Amino acid sequence: MRQIQVINSLAAAGHKISVYGFEKCGEDYFHPAVNRCCCVSAAIEVAEIVILPLPYTTNGTNINAPFCDEELTPESMIATVQKGKQLFVGKVDERIKKLCDAHEIRCVDYFDREELAVRNSIPTAEGAIAVAMKETPFTLHGSNCLCLGFGRIGKVLAKMLHGIGANVSVAARKPSDMSWINAYGYTPLHIGKLDGEIVKYDVIFNTVPHQVLDFNLLSKLKKDVLVIDLASKPGGVAFDTARQLGIKVNWELSLPGRVAPATAGKIISDTILSIIDSLEGG
Amino acid sequence: MRQIQVINSLAAAGHKISVYGFEKCGEDYFHPAVNRCCCVSAAIEVAEIVILPLPYTTNGTNINAPFCDEELTPESMIATVQKGKQLFVGKVDERIKKLCDAHEIRCVDYFDREELAVRNSIPTAEGAIAVAMKETPFTLHGSNCLCLGFGRIGKVLAKMLHGIGANVSVAARKPSDMSWINAYGYTPLHIGKLDGEIVKYDVIFNTVPHQVLDFNLLSKLKKDVLVIDLASKPGGVAFDTARQLGIKVNWELSLPGRVAPATAGKIISDTILSIIDSLEGG
Amino acid sequence: MRQIQVINSLAAAGHKISVYGFEKCGEDYFHPAVNRCCCVSAAIEVAEIVILPLPYTTNGTNINAPFCDEELTPESMIATVQKGKQLFVGKVDERIKKLCDAHEIRCVDYFDREELAVRNSIPTAEGAIAVAMKETPFTLHGSNCLCLGFGRIGKVLAKMLHGIGANVSVAARKPSDMSWINAYGYTPLHIGKLDGEIVKYDVIFNTVPHQVLDFNLLSKLKKDVLVIDLASKPGGVAFDTARQLGIKVNWELSLPGRVAPATAGKIISDTILSIIDSLEGG
Amino acid sequence: MRQIQVINSLAAAGHKISVYGFEKCGEDYFHPAVNRCCCVSAAIEVAEIVILPLPYTTNGTNINAPFCDEELTPESMIATVQKGKQLFVGKVDERIKKLCDAHEIRCVDYFDREELAVRNSIPTAEGAIAVAMKETPFTLHGSNCLCLGFGRIGKVLAKMLHGIGANVSVAARKPSDMSWINAYGYTPLHIGKLDGEIVKYDVIFNTVPHQVLDFNLLSKLKKDVLVIDLASKPGGVAFDTARQLGIKVNWELSLPGRVAPATAGKIISDTILSIIDSLEGG
Repeated sequence: MRQIQVINSLAAAGHKISVYGFEKCGEDYFHPAVNRCCCVSAAIEVAEIVILPLPYTTNGTNINAPFCDEELTPESMIATVQKGKQLFVGKVDERIKKLCDAHEIRCVDYFDREELAVRNSIPTAEGAIAVAMKETPFTLHGSNCLCLGFGRIGKVLAKMLHGIGANVSVAARKPSDMSWINAYGYTPLHIGKLDGEIVKYDVIFNTVPHQVLDFNLLSKLKKDVLVIDLASKPGGVAFDTARQLGIKVNWELSLPGRVAPATAGKIISDTILSIIDSLEGG
Repeated sequence: MRQIQVINSLAAAGHKISVYGFEKCGEDYFHPAVNRCCCVSAAIEVAEIVILPLPYTTNGTNINAPFCDEELTPESMIATVQKGKQLFVGKVDERIKKLCDAHEIRCVDYFDREELAVRNSIPTAEGAIAVAMKETPFTLHGSNCLCLGFGRIGKVLAKMLHGIGANVSVAARKPSDMSWINAYGYTPLHIGKLDGEIVKYDVIFNTVPHQVLDFNLLSKLKKDVLVIDLASKPGGVAFDTARQLGIKVNWELSLPGRVAPATAGKIISDTILSIIDSLEGG
Repeated sequence: MRQIQVINSLAAAGHKISVYGFEKCGEDYFHPAVNRCCCVSAAIEVAEIVILPLPYTTNGTNINAPFCDEELTPESMIATVQKGKQLFVGKVDERIKKLCDAHEIRCVDYFDREELAVRNSIPTAEGAIAVAMKETPFTLHGSNCLCLGFGRIGKVLAKMLHGIGANVSVAARKPSDMSWINAYGYTPLHIGKLDGEIVKYDVIFNTVPHQVLDFNLLSKLKKDVLVIDLASKPGGVAFDTARQLGIKVNWELSLPGRVAPATAGKIISDTILSIIDSLEGG
Repeated sequence: MRQIQVINSLAAAGHKISVYGFEKCGEDYFHPAVNRCCCVSAAIEVAEIVILPLPYTTNGTNINAPFCDEELTPESMIATVQKGKQLFVGKVDERIKKLCDAHEIRCVDYFDREELAVRNSIPTAEGAIAVAMKETPFTLHGSNCLCLGFGRIGKVLAKMLHGIGANVSVAARKPSDMSWINAYGYTPLHIGKLDGEIVKYDVIFNTVPHQVLDFNLLSKLKKDVLVIDLASKPGGVAFDTARQLGIKVNWELSLPGRVAPATAGKIISDTILSIIDSLEGG
């Protein structure tokens, strides 16, 4: 759904779009200007820019195309892209990089943009709040919430929790982050000195991608706490220990696409459009 | 669960509590000071105050007691309460009133307190937000949200939506409400003049207990809008018309007990405690 | 200045306006459609509605007209208004009422409107905050602020202080107000039980028009506290006692006209226009 | 006053403090543990750390010491500091650096700390708001406010203005700043494309230290706009042009020390204490 949103936004912005791999979608899913091609080479040969879905693969082999009848590898697809054209991929890896180098195609990672990451922190934070509301028998208003980390997600999440009426604490390390946390009206905590404080929290959101909630801290949590881990692998929680201690942990990855696919698609299409604009501008 | 929370809170506050009708609950559900009685008369004869569950009946006949082996009518129960004692009931109706009059029992409606209604608007608003987050493919942040009505729920809901980052409009009628809506930073709309405006909203929350969203307004809504009706019967939406027009309407009643039973129980027990305090004070 | 703002707004709304008593103002102060009359009877005889300034008198005898060469009493002025016409006055008193009755003129108090009072609480709250910022050597952000009373001014003031980052407590009496204070994210205090708490506040704003801050409470305040009294006469502070104790008290009356005359004028003209609309509508 | 606050905070934290240059202050200005010296060498010889006032000079020659009878140059003062000791100065310049190098004294710039700069943005923002409230005849609530720049001051100022109820726009350049401005609920504007928009603003706050408001933009401002420039020299406004155009510009420098000396002093003393702690820790 997010992918279709991207396609339609680009078409609506006046770009000529050819798509392949959506055989199973009805006509009415697409903007009328979208050109549906029956084979991948037909779609690719007319294009200046080829855009792969996000993530480009889900099984590690083929291109992620749930609405497609055919299976297609990045290798065979990229082989049909002509030299000098551009390939837009989210989360470029070594495999894609090498393929692009080999075929002299310019590779642009649209997911590696600061403004996209900032905007994605909004659906991530809302998704985390929706999970917290669903999984707790109390209101967030008036509850004690702790955010571990004050990066993009921590900033947006803390603001929203505060806006709902939670008592918000944020744990960070840098003195300037402490000053910011205080400036925004939350309680600053040093992430290395949580021992004595952590028992009072009803919901803990982790955004730090290494193990903050180790055995020591987990063993000090309030019974019935909810831990929501938003960090990418390996996550920030000693999951096995948590399970043994009977602590409820929800590890929530890729929230934007799951909880707000329309918004997530809009963020990607806006970013792609802005990259195209700057290419044309240059 | 809400009922058990009430019982335990009252016991924790030092009141002597006898319960009946929880045979199916394990021992560990209750505060140690709670006295579990094997028959209703044993529970009632020692009590100064008898508290019925909320709602006191779910099938219109018997007392609402899902954990009880026996079926008990309010009539038979109240017959065992001695003259001069007090019966605490939430949402007192004619049936209960007459029974209390007949047995010369004082009847107190703990649900008919302004402070309880105000506090209940918090879990109601959070529940409505959780529904909106779950049922829409976009984020509330940046979306256009409209609250119909600026009573208790409208006030709390508007504040929370604003706190999450939604663009919040509130429709009301009284000039002073318009001034308040503006003072709080939302866009005020006259509830009788929504025709031209209503198309722009992504989510509409109704709190007015009569039909605001009639055929005229429903036919002007944005395709893909979500309507969440929070009003008690008969609700504020022409439900059949909405269905015919293909408009998604969620009628959400009794949210506090469903989405935040611990908070809802605490609100009731706080209110009962405060009534008891004021009785003793007097 | 507020009065001139009212005149120009009414003229801009398409009403025919005649003015008297502004001889000392240059032409460019007024909207071009304003008809300046050389004598009061010329102005009055063409008018359906006669509007007096706010307050209508400052010296208790004559009409408040600082830009006028002549002195005019309400008695002589009202004697020239024809039967059946309307007199708009802010803060009508017995003297005006009797005069209107005697001359069979309908008297409308435009200041006695709830929506005006709500809107006026905004410049009042901002003015109070400006005073607090000016008179304290610390920032409001991070300071402990207490509002006495949760009426219109208390509500708006608490919201703004919270928005600046102050720690906001509000003292009230009704249980439902306590619930609201908590719902909005401030700390609720019982106004009759401030003894033990009041020492921690850096700035105290009073909105209650009877003596809350008596000797007992004043003697418990933090040294260097600032008290800002916003209550109309007799105010809420034992002023003499405060002076003896060396406590800094600012009694700030009529803030809207002093700190934001353009806004205050707009509020009055909007209210007058809305009254005229409803008269015409009826 | 800010300096005295620093001295007393350090003394209260248990450090041994000797002061020189406060002959004109009464005893009761200081913490009892502060040792007042009658000559500068007496104060310096017992100290491990020598702290200069902020700014260290106001006339370009002597040390800034308004309560001192004697005039003292940094050169003569530093000559008395023993090798290996530390000199804490705010806003170190070449002159101080060379003197410290020559005398083999370690020089620490306590003003050059990110956490201090973040915290100082709070009194700066409050000071700017106080000026705006004082200098405008309307309320900030409901007015259109524009912040130029989204650095530390821009962030805090936008948050406070929003908290008071202003309509807040922020102009920046980086796409990620645009995303942040939107995430926080303000209207993002591109600082290079203000032409068409700038006419609608009632108050404009500049935080960018180069000329943003040039003739072109100044000539497009609303009549009666208030411009508050918070940028350090050379400021962000073509001041002469503004004067010719009759635009009201307030250039407000060093607000923290002027509007909230107690807070400003606390920020400096906290920072100095934290530097000392980390020195001792290391």
